[in-house]
Formats: sequence, structure tokens, C-alpha cells
Amino acid sequence: MIIHTIKELRELVKGWRKEGLSVGLVPTMGALHAGHRSLIEKSVSKCDKTVVSVFVNPIQFCPGEDLDKYPRTLNADEQLVSDAGADVVFAPSPKEMYGEGHILSNDFLTYVIPPYFYVDKLCGKSRVGHFDGVCTVVNKLFNIVQPDFAFFGEKDRQQLIILKKMVKDLNIPVEIIACPIVREESGLALSSRNKYLSDEQKKDALVLSKILFNIKACYNKGITNVSELVETAYAFLNSNHSLEYLEFRDCENLEEKKVADSDTIVFIALKVGNVRLIDNIKLS
Amino acid sequence: MIIHTIKELRELVKGWRKEGLSVGLVPTMGALHAGHRSLIEKSVSKCDKTVVSVFVNPIQFCPGEDLDKYPRTLNADEQLVSDAGADVVFAPSPKEMYGEGHILSNDFLTYVIPPYFYVDKLCGKSRVGHFDGVCTVVNKLFNIVQPDFAFFGEKDRQQLIILKKMVKDLNIPVEIIACPIVREESGLALSSRNKYLSDEQKKDALVLSKILFNIKACYNKGITNVSELVETAYAFLNSNHSLEYLEFRDCENLEEKKVADSDTIVFIALKVGNVRLIDNIKLS
Repeated sequence: MIIHTIKELRELVKGWRKEGLSVGLVPTMGALHAGHRSLIEKSVSKCDKTVVSVFVNPIQFCPGEDLDKYPRTLNADEQLVSDAGADVVFAPSPKEMYGEGHILSNDFLTYVIPPYFYVDKLCGKSRVGHFDGVCTVVNKLFNIVQPDFAFFGEKDRQQLIILKKMVKDLNIPVEIIACPIVREESGLALSSRNKYLSDEQKKDALVLSKILFNIKACYNKGITNVSELVETAYAFLNSNHSLEYLEFRDCENLEEKKVADSDTIVFIALKVGNVRLIDNIKLS
Repeated sequence: MIIHTIKELRELVKGWRKEGLSVGLVPTMGALHAGHRSLIEKSVSKCDKTVVSVFVNPIQFCPGEDLDKYPRTLNADEQLVSDAGADVVFAPSPKEMYGEGHILSNDFLTYVIPPYFYVDKLCGKSRVGHFDGVCTVVNKLFNIVQPDFAFFGEKDRQQLIILKKMVKDLNIPVEIIACPIVREESGLALSSRNKYLSDEQKKDALVLSKILFNIKACYNKGITNVSELVETAYAFLNSNHSLEYLEFRDCENLEEKKVADSDTIVFIALKVGNVRLIDNIKLS
């Protein structure tokens, strides 16, 4: 089943609530892959009813980013959602979510803004305003669906940490469930943006997981000095890679780590051609 | 009954919900007067259960404002709430609401930020960040109580308009009920800050309502040119008054009016001594 309006979705969920059923929400931007599927399956196993939202959220794209060419595959998405056992796809239009004209200017929209300390680093540094858009749309989806649980992938780890912080700071009555990264056999983390990669670029893209796995192996052998661990990455990089960041940060509050420990996440972002890819790993 | 923790309040409300009861919320900063009482009575008449929150919200005070000396009268507040027929006072500590240290820096707190167009004028101009603090705390209270209705006074009209916008923009499942200004027989709008006024200053404070009532009378006689209406105010002002603004704006979106109509609100703010007072009236 697919629903396009907020009103219809609310009525559906209200009916479930009356029956005392628990509700899970899996917010996505569509172009669903096995990573999303694992989130949906987690929700289906944990909750009586599962809503999967498919919405390419314009306000989380920065100027010059890929809003227009972001892959949109609603029919395939609906099939995957149904195969995974979820109950409904919620696919609103930008107008349904933001009204006429709202998208044109920040001056006329109420925003949910994550703390500066959480966004002045990693992806937030190059994608200015991105997490404002993410927090705002997720807040809206939470208010529309009022789920008991919401499922997010660890692939977008900074996003996950920021959303957990939002839920805590604003006392939102939703529990966020983090789901592990799903990888191809090659190690490549699944991402809707992998569709932009040529076969050649896909090989180059393996460097992200290779660097992370190697750092974790070094850490497991007892190396905890972050400078030393960072240095191990350079052997993997060549002129096809444009490294944006490789950083070691705390899994709760994103503080920088000089010495790696079991609460450390290693974050990496780099470009292969014009495609920006991210990955991360927890050292535990 | 008085409750100080979020957890206890949630349990109480959950019990009400199970019984199918409707819930009203009256958010206040305490120092309750007959204006608040009218909000509480409205909620009691409309909802099965009424929560009155009493919380002097530190993040809505600007540097140099009266946070420390803001009147705190919790015992009297509790009595008034009970007399007015409400069910519970929710009086959390700043630590309960914001956790340790959060108040010290914006960099570590998720904020709900109203649109720039709504805050770059009227009280928002002199009270920078004030409405960010208001939206954030009201959003938190909505998430904690999850009321069906929330009651706000028209005395703080810019706040009311901004909160309605927040509810719309973020799809918050709460209906905001606006309640009319309560005035002394003299015309003075009730305000917790009236406690700061000496008897002499109280007489000077009558100028706000006098100006507004006179403008409305002129409008009713057919004068709609805003410049002309503004000019009628000057006869009332003397050296005891320091006028901050007198503006004519739309009741929905705060756009400026050059010609007054039935959707126009007249806003006034001025200082009597060190006490900043506000008032407003709708021309309908």
C-alpha cells in the first residue's frame, strides 16, 4: 500500500493505535537497497506495524548537490517494502511536506537545528545546513507517524548520533534503533549513491572499507595512537581518490580522540570522480 | 498535585490516555495571575484533564534580562491551579529540562528555531534568541505531555503566532487555542512583570491600552491609513515612556500593513522606568 497524504497516513496509524498495535518507522529517501531492507526487516520483527517513508527531502540538499538527479525508483521501492513485510509506503510530495513556496526560503520555515558542536565537523563541514534539513524532516515525520521506534542505519553515523541527540534534547517519545551497515562481499558499504559509480570507480571505492578494516586490525593488534593509525591509510590512496576526512571521534558526542578506545568511531569521506562516499567503523 | 520529573508526569498522562481522556496543557513561567487563570479555566472546560507547567525557562531570557529576579511564587501558583480546577502542576528544575551544563552553551543543545521572517521584528528585534528559547521549550513540553490542546494568551501575540507556525511547519499533533487578553478595570493588560511596577509607574503603564483603544476607535470611525493611526498615539506619550515600537501587522504572518483592515493587529512595546511592557489589539 502506498499513501501520499499526511491526513490519510494519520488516519491509518490512528486505527492501529486504537487496536493497541506498536508502530515502527523507517525514514528513507528511496532508491532502496539491501541496507534499507535490513532496517525494514528489523522494524517488522520488532513492531506490529511498519511505515516506510520515501521522501527525497529538498531541504537537506545543499546548493550544488544532487537533489535533481538523486535516484527516484518509487515502484521498485514499493515492491521491496512489501517483500520485506512492511505495511505501508508513505511517499508525500515536497508540497505536501512543506507547502507552497516554503522550500524557496529558510526565512519562512520553522527549523530543528542540531547543536553546533555536532555539525561543525565531518560531513557537516562540507554540507552546510544538511543536518538542519535532516533534523527538521525527521521531526516532522515523527510528528506525523508518532511511531514507537524509528530505524536508522549506522552508515550515516553522524546523522544517527545527531538524531539521537535531538530525541534526547527535545524529549521526543520515540526510541531510535541503530542498525549495522550492510556491505557487499567486496566490503563496499551499500548506498543509494553507489548507482552513480562506473565499474571502474566501484573498484576505487573499495578503498574506504579497506582503510577502515585495516585500521581496526591495527587497533586490535594494540596500536591506539590515532596519528599512527591515520598514517596506515595513506598506502591505500592513489590519484583516483580525493580524501575529505579521516577522523577518530567519540560514538556518543563526536569529541575528537587522540587515543583510540572501544568508544571510538573511525569516520571516512572521499570522492571517487564526482561521487562523494562515506563509511565508518566502530573500534570495539 | 505537583510533579517535578518528566518520568512521573509521563506515567500520569499515560494512565489518562489509557482511560481515553483528553489532555490540555497550559505552559506558564509561574507567577500566575487572572490571565493565566482564564487559560486554565478554558482548558478545564474543554479537556478531561489539564496540566499546568510552571517553568522559568532560562534559554528564553537574553543576556541582561530578568532571569534571576523573575518572580517565582510556586506555592501560590499551585493554589491557583487547584482552585481553577486543573489536575496537576508540572514544575521541573532547569536540570530536569536541560540536563547538566546544557544551559551554559547553545553549542550542545538541539534548538527549534522559528522562521527569520517571524522573529526579525517586534519583540524579536530587541530580544535576540528569545523565540528560539520559547519554541524549543514548548516543543519539549509538547513531547513530554503530548496534549490534545495547548492554551496560550493573546497578550504574547507574536509568541502565539510563532507557536502556531511551529505547529504547522513541524506537523505537531497539538491544537493551539488562543485566549483573549485579561485586563484590569483600568485597561492594563495583566502580566507577571506588572509586579515590578510602583503605584506611580502603574499609572504610566496605562498608556499602552489607552493608545491601542484609541487607535481601534479611530479605525472604527473609518481611519485606515496606518501613518495617520500611528500619529494618534503621540498625544498619550510623555517623558516617563520610552516607546520601543508601535506597529501594524497581519494576524497570521506578521507582514507589515500600510492600510489597516480586520486582519490587522496593532502591537505596542514601551518601557516605564526599567520595566518593559507589551500589549496588542486586533482591529476587527
